[in-house]
Amino acid sequence: MKFDDGNMKWKILRSEKLIERPWMNVRRDSVELPNGKVYDEYYVLHYPTWVNVIAITKDGKFLLERQYRHGLGIVSTEICAGCAEEGENPLTAAKRELLEETGYAGGTWTELMVVAPNAGSNDNLSYCFLAEGVTPISEQHLDETEDINVFLCSREEVYKMLVEGEFKQAMMVAPLWKYFANHRF
Amino acid sequence: MKFDDGNMKWKILRSEKLIERPWMNVRRDSVELPNGKVYDEYYVLHYPTWVNVIAITKDGKFLLERQYRHGLGIVSTEICAGCAEEGENPLTAAKRELLEETGYAGGTWTELMVVAPNAGSNDNLSYCFLAEGVTPISEQHLDETEDINVFLCSREEVYKMLVEGEFKQAMMVAPLWKYFANHRF
Repeated sequence: MKFDDGNMKWKILRSEKLIERPWMNVRRDSVELPNGKVYDEYYVLHYPTWVNVIAITKDGKFLLERQYRHGLGIVSTEICAGCAEEGENPLTAAKRELLEETGYAGGTWTELMVVAPNAGSNDNLSYCFLAEGVTPISEQHLDETEDINVFLCSREEVYKMLVEGEFKQAMMVAPLWKYFANHRF
Repeated sequence: MKFDDGNMKWKILRSEKLIERPWMNVRRDSVELPNGKVYDEYYVLHYPTWVNVIAITKDGKFLLERQYRHGLGIVSTEICAGCAEEGENPLTAAKRELLEETGYAGGTWTELMVVAPNAGSNDNLSYCFLAEGVTPISEQHLDETEDINVFLCSREEVYKMLVEGEFKQAMMVAPLWKYFANHRF
């Protein structure tokens, strides 16, 4: 679809770094809107590219994870996810994260979707992959602050959990629903 | 599904407000992990409850919006979305946002899903509704920084855009795919 948006883009008048820490990187922009109004504090969160993967083993089981998420203060049911490193392409990052978090690798990988975690506040994208036919090749190798329980689920169980709202992360719920829209029962 | 997570929850040792502005509210926690490790700076973004709605008119057209999103610096194709006000329940907020942004109201409303914009970094949830049979009852009433072009699309057009990745916001892509998984062609 073609859109005739006219001029909707904002102009950045000033931009300053507010916080620059490994997991929190915020800039404050002073912006001019197309109608001429100036908005003096618009905050943008800078993050690396994010990746996640719906990984399915050779015998059709889905690799899932349970992990504590401090923002909401809940233990969350998820698919494998992580951050791309500087200069690393999203597919390579997703394969690395899957291996680190679960010890699984291989199979056939396709890009399911690219979504914005939040196009208003964040400057990054999240790449979602489907990996079919993965097999275990090593142990888990977790970062210091990672504490991830990996488990296998049947396709029926995953679908039931999805319908019941067991998965919370929007960036994961989106590719899971796309998967089940395209791989119907 | 029942999970035996053992003890995965983190303990907050200290918590301080770092920034407290209308659109950027950050706290820094010092946390102790179950393995005893202390992580001295974990940042949590505080936001209000967010809402969005797949709104379909009486004659089956989808209400969509084009809007500039400064985080990514793009003009984005979206469904109607906004923030709940203090004490406002999500359904009321979604109906108010639809009326303000598009002038449409009425119809039959159901909750499609509740997702976490980011369970790791954010403390809020996003409620996604389906509104079927809405009708125009007034003009748009936008906030100062809102510049929203509303347009109508057929079901087929929306599905095509979804498949082609035209919708970027994960919190919107998730309910759209659920809708099309449940309302098949």
